[in-house]
Amino acid sequence: MYKENNYPSQLLEDAVEAISTLPGVGKRGALRLALHLLGSPAENVHHFTKAINDLRDNVRYCRVCNMISDTDICSVCGDSSRDRSTVCVVESVRDVMSIENTMQYKGLYHVLGGVISPLDGIGPDNLAIDALERRLAAPDTEIKEVILALDGDVEGETTSFYLYRRIAGYGIAVTTLARGLGFGDDLEYADSLTLGRSILARQPFSIERK
Amino acid sequence: MYKENNYPSQLLEDAVEAISTLPGVGKRGALRLALHLLGSPAENVHHFTKAINDLRDNVRYCRVCNMISDTDICSVCGDSSRDRSTVCVVESVRDVMSIENTMQYKGLYHVLGGVISPLDGIGPDNLAIDALERRLAAPDTEIKEVILALDGDVEGETTSFYLYRRIAGYGIAVTTLARGLGFGDDLEYADSLTLGRSILARQPFSIERK
Repeated sequence: MYKENNYPSQLLEDAVEAISTLPGVGKRGALRLALHLLGSPAENVHHFTKAINDLRDNVRYCRVCNMISDTDICSVCGDSSRDRSTVCVVESVRDVMSIENTMQYKGLYHVLGGVISPLDGIGPDNLAIDALERRLAAPDTEIKEVILALDGDVEGETTSFYLYRRIAGYGIAVTTLARGLGFGDDLEYADSLTLGRSILARQPFSIERK
Repeated sequence: MYKENNYPSQLLEDAVEAISTLPGVGKRGALRLALHLLGSPAENVHHFTKAINDLRDNVRYCRVCNMISDTDICSVCGDSSRDRSTVCVVESVRDVMSIENTMQYKGLYHVLGGVISPLDGIGPDNLAIDALERRLAAPDTEIKEVILALDGDVEGETTSFYLYRRIAGYGIAVTTLARGLGFGDDLEYADSLTLGRSILARQPFSIERK
């Protein structure tokens, strides 16, 4: 009998332990994945692990905006058709991909690489905030607006507030994302904080919906 | 703009492609896992990939029952308290773990490593069937019963039938798992095949429920 958390093989147990460190993967799911990999051709498994090691070991970041990139300057920063007067400050690579997918934003980005979170030991010095300030302070800067596009949780709000205070001195417009009911949302199911803010921040009615 | 299936980095795309080959992991989930690994310390990522490579490259199987094992003889086959007269034939390592978890079975196992599936190019020669027959034919064999514990799908049934014909000559009892309504199942929601078979295979009522 294999007791709970006991496996017929130490190698299998080690692999399950490692796989279950992934977010959203429990012990059962990790066992399923480990046995799948065990049953796959060795070259497929090596390709799988090599792709992950390569990503972690050889990843590069754009030296302007800190976005993941295979080149020194990322494809957004290097695109002369983008609006260079606007910089959207986000937490992560994922956020840039989400905003790009909306096809609504034509400016540049700045990826902080996280948010201020004292509980996790992450302070302003661990984020790409100095690099952002250098972009704003550069003599040839074209930046006229900084959009703080961070999450609406405590860490995101704290970071937005901190950034606002550091940026305020540069005479650059600082904006943030509109918050309110989602498009298509029912009032009935909206949380009261969001609904309350949506009333306070009400907008002129327009037949042309954006 | 990153078009669909287009990523800011080839390394990221390669990792997402590799991760999305896992069962039950789509492109979105793979991206989330890739970015998680990207944000993890390099030594954690290397530990993760090494555990998987080690499992695939150094795995060993019990030379009696074909179960995954770190030793030449697995812990079940090497356990003198197990009932050596009964062998439970299963498809996979996972099935042995599931049956062991029930704590109801005290016999030995035989892991086929798959089921007969002509569509997937898996025939009897690709499975540990010869090894099973050698166990049954050994002059000093203690085996008196073989339990065919394969899945109830077409491949499982085909394999059971094939095994039954090969085993029949050895004068050994061949049994299979009881099929019927699950304990706690509602009749209302049972599929009619299972319900029909449960009626045909009805059992004497007993106050003592097993």
